[in-house]
Amino acid sequence: MDKVYSDSLKLHKKFHGKLEIKSKVPIKNRADLSLAYTPGVAEVCRVIAKDKTLAREYTLKRNTVAVVSDGSAILGLGNLGASAALPVMEGKAILFKEFAGVDAFPICLDTQDTEEIIKTVKYLAPVFGGINLEDISAPRCFEIEERLKKELSIPVMHDDQHGTATVVLAGMINAMKLKKMDKAVAKVVISGAGAAGTAVAKMLIKYGFKNIFVCDSKGLLHSGRTDLNPSKLELVALTNQKSGADNSLVGVLKNADVFIGVSGPKIIDREAVKKMNSKPVIFALANPVPEIMPNEAMAGGAYIVASGRSDFPNQINNVLAFPGIFRGALDNKVVQITDEMLIKAAENLAKYVKNLKPNNILPLPLDKGVVKVVAKAIK
Amino acid sequence: MDKVYSDSLKLHKKFHGKLEIKSKVPIKNRADLSLAYTPGVAEVCRVIAKDKTLAREYTLKRNTVAVVSDGSAILGLGNLGASAALPVMEGKAILFKEFAGVDAFPICLDTQDTEEIIKTVKYLAPVFGGINLEDISAPRCFEIEERLKKELSIPVMHDDQHGTATVVLAGMINAMKLKKMDKAVAKVVISGAGAAGTAVAKMLIKYGFKNIFVCDSKGLLHSGRTDLNPSKLELVALTNQKSGADNSLVGVLKNADVFIGVSGPKIIDREAVKKMNSKPVIFALANPVPEIMPNEAMAGGAYIVASGRSDFPNQINNVLAFPGIFRGALDNKVVQITDEMLIKAAENLAKYVKNLKPNNILPLPLDKGVVKVVAKAIK
Repeated sequence: MDKVYSDSLKLHKKFHGKLEIKSKVPIKNRADLSLAYTPGVAEVCRVIAKDKTLAREYTLKRNTVAVVSDGSAILGLGNLGASAALPVMEGKAILFKEFAGVDAFPICLDTQDTEEIIKTVKYLAPVFGGINLEDISAPRCFEIEERLKKELSIPVMHDDQHGTATVVLAGMINAMKLKKMDKAVAKVVISGAGAAGTAVAKMLIKYGFKNIFVCDSKGLLHSGRTDLNPSKLELVALTNQKSGADNSLVGVLKNADVFIGVSGPKIIDREAVKKMNSKPVIFALANPVPEIMPNEAMAGGAYIVASGRSDFPNQINNVLAFPGIFRGALDNKVVQITDEMLIKAAENLAKYVKNLKPNNILPLPLDKGVVKVVAKAIK
Repeated sequence: MDKVYSDSLKLHKKFHGKLEIKSKVPIKNRADLSLAYTPGVAEVCRVIAKDKTLAREYTLKRNTVAVVSDGSAILGLGNLGASAALPVMEGKAILFKEFAGVDAFPICLDTQDTEEIIKTVKYLAPVFGGINLEDISAPRCFEIEERLKKELSIPVMHDDQHGTATVVLAGMINAMKLKKMDKAVAKVVISGAGAAGTAVAKMLIKYGFKNIFVCDSKGLLHSGRTDLNPSKLELVALTNQKSGADNSLVGVLKNADVFIGVSGPKIIDREAVKKMNSKPVIFALANPVPEIMPNEAMAGGAYIVASGRSDFPNQINNVLAFPGIFRGALDNKVVQITDEMLIKAAENLAKYVKNLKPNNILPLPLDKGVVKVVAKAIK
């Protein structure tokens, strides 16, 4: 077993998880108890009963986000269920606190029924100031997010979609700058038409990229395909999708300027990179094993390589986005996190990079200044 | 407004609630991040996917309890809904941590449908090592608790029922000792046939009290009543309920040795106490205003007076029970919290009182030694 895995098991076993609850108020004597609990708390209940919006002033709601998953698409591991999702959601919760001071709590649901998930999150909403959906498989994730955004009056975001898209866009802004290439001209091929691929494609298009091609495991999404679900059909309508003699991922990569992989391990090699235009940009984001290893991509002639991993340069990690997005949403009382806000967040992230160069297109995930520039955009 | 109320509002506004999330593990550098989050966490997911019971070893589940309410019976305030329940559940969560080191999180549900509550709690169960139901109105609370106990493999307890009953029994054990009265002889009148009254009656009977009379707002529960729901009919079958000329609460109190009020404010006066047998025991537990104020009860000749309030002697407060009950259940891997365990907990609580006297029949709620003697019983 890799050392990182055995060490991680050890850490989790030593502490029995990673998150704990703490009191912010003293409970040392009767007087403390009478204010934090009965009888004093009764008045707080009465005040909120009269005006529910005051829960934001008087309870944890103001600063608390639910990290909700059904365990159907955990990391790159697949559908392992609610219990197995817990270490990821718990980890995400502590990152929320560590990076943005947001209190977050893992909610792993023992159902994968779309309607039941929607209903359950709505039932839980009184406690939370925001809902971060996580590791829910496509296409269910699209409906769950869309419905919750409509039906709740707190911000809802599926991080695998929009957190990823925000950080990818930030990286793309800087990659285009380094390549001195117009976004309207660049040919971009996205591998993966799930939650992340769909959101990345839509956000790039919204930002002004005009040559986007999306592939799933069967190759290019195009209007000749008869096996596409509604969300993939929507992508067909939004993308260029000129089908040709070779609609395989490698075929589509010919003459491309950018490859964005949000799919699975090792699906292209240096030969595929060589077929791209010169000095291509490779974002190979599958975790833990990317679509192509960075050294292999460089060997194929890549100019800029990014991955999801912390052991290579240019880490595209959602932790650059979600803490600041929710920090901003909570602080600025944002109910709907819009694409425009996320684009602004991506621009702020891109601008935040000092000493821009091919192996330094994004801030480091542990840079604590990041949260501020992202949060500023969410208003 | 009472000072305790305005001070409590101030406290809640200052801190915006009372609870926060903290990380138990360091996240200072890339190595930390790779163990607590990706890629290391993937192995923890895989291990739990193979054996769900390992969530207890590797996640917060081991030490975490959900404090679940639908806001239908908040304190003595009634049905104020989920948002208004939040300050109480958040308060309870910090008491869990403060007194027993248990991490607890408030779950306030925006539904009061019995089946929906049951389903939702089952969906949430993967995250939690125990479920503390709270402030859910009778008779729905009985079915919700019973079903969840049957259908979940983690301990479930409705604190308004069993936490209250445990502390009342502890108080009654010491009251009988002081009165040198046999529990089989004492005539006990309970005012209130909701969650608390029902559980108190059942536990006293289980412990060996043989003369129990229960009244609701319409007087004695007896077999001649045609207006009783199934849980009240069950009480009729369990209690003595000889209906007489005067089935009002005050009528039933005649010649009683003990009054236990878990109903509402100021429903008896000193004249009622005078009709009881000499040196009666008065537990007036309605909060914040008891069934009879302690000084009024003493004026009627009471020997022992207990209330739910911290500003009088003999406070009957659930905080004496629930932290230790869940501490014991979590540590001893108890799946079903039984009446036998709770009776043992009550006996331990009663025994824990040094210098037993009429105005000192229970430990103080802030006594940190209490949790250990209670937890010891839950195994």
